[in-house]
Amino acid sequence: MKELEERIRRDGVVKPENVLKVDSFLNHQMDVELFRKMAEEWKRLFTNEKINKILTIEASGIGIACIAAEYFHVPVVFAKKAVNVNIDGEVYSSQIESFTKKRIYNVVVSKKFLNPEDNILIIDDFLANGCAVMGLIEIIQEAGATLSGVGIAIEKGFQIGGKLLRESGIHVESLAIVDGMNPESGEIYFRSQP
Amino acid sequence: MKELEERIRRDGVVKPENVLKVDSFLNHQMDVELFRKMAEEWKRLFTNEKINKILTIEASGIGIACIAAEYFHVPVVFAKKAVNVNIDGEVYSSQIESFTKKRIYNVVVSKKFLNPEDNILIIDDFLANGCAVMGLIEIIQEAGATLSGVGIAIEKGFQIGGKLLRESGIHVESLAIVDGMNPESGEIYFRSQP
Repeated sequence: MKELEERIRRDGVVKPENVLKVDSFLNHQMDVELFRKMAEEWKRLFTNEKINKILTIEASGIGIACIAAEYFHVPVVFAKKAVNVNIDGEVYSSQIESFTKKRIYNVVVSKKFLNPEDNILIIDDFLANGCAVMGLIEIIQEAGATLSGVGIAIEKGFQIGGKLLRESGIHVESLAIVDGMNPESGEIYFRSQP
Repeated sequence: MKELEERIRRDGVVKPENVLKVDSFLNHQMDVELFRKMAEEWKRLFTNEKINKILTIEASGIGIACIAAEYFHVPVVFAKKAVNVNIDGEVYSSQIESFTKKRIYNVVVSKKFLNPEDNILIIDDFLANGCAVMGLIEIIQEAGATLSGVGIAIEKGFQIGGKLLRESGIHVESLAIVDGMNPESGEIYFRSQP
């Protein structure tokens, strides 16, 4: 998606250790006008998929998932990063490792909000090693629901996540795929997509 | 807002210790069609306020804040609950105590995203003792920005937060104010609002 790539080039900051900061428009300050265009694009890319629910993970997936949900006319469920007193009853859970936070945590979804009839689109801001998405897929499988696709804002194409997911037959659509970054020059190389 | 009150009556669950669970439509599963109607109502209620940015707090404020931002045509900034490697440079911070999680944590906002020219609308899902909102107000004051108003989905009118904020002259608009709940019958009593 050209507009997202241009925005990443303009406002993204390349840091050492393959960190790409996009906190001025995607995951700390959020440009909802851009989110609308991203949502339109996901709607176009997943138009042939059956989707009745969007699943994301707190916190930075929630904004883009909610705007996407307006275009798909479905509810959003977000996986929570810890069990707390507001999630009673039973939950589906999995463990994921955060690339940027370098720690492992549990993610949970109340069993009330996922069921075998659901056809689910996962939405998240980043795809790198794929841990967060794999965790959400585990939860979908636990629930006996169907995964219809995975919509990602920015994929780090030089990490393994996207390749693993696509090779297992999952319909993955990343709006921008970064194949390399140069922390010294700040250059970002995008994979060309149809 | 009648539609929100009706939804709370229908799908909210009253628990002991003044806990109101609305996780089927507000803060775990999210009904974005309802969020749009809430956003329209905030837009109407704050129509005379100067607003160029919405501030909320992760995680459950993000969805409603993003949908509201579409109606106000402004960006959203969400306060994060811990310093991590993705927030470099300086941050504004404050401490808040979670009513439901019964613990104290730091919230931070990057200094890049708040400045003295900003006129800010705070959006959050719940207002109870007001700690979260007070923490965000502290951050706004640190930044030298102006608070234009506070938009809340559900206020617990029997707790002190709303009263304190209104008495200090802040423009608070809660779309539903719960003045009492009966955990045995499940009844919820709403304050009548103009």
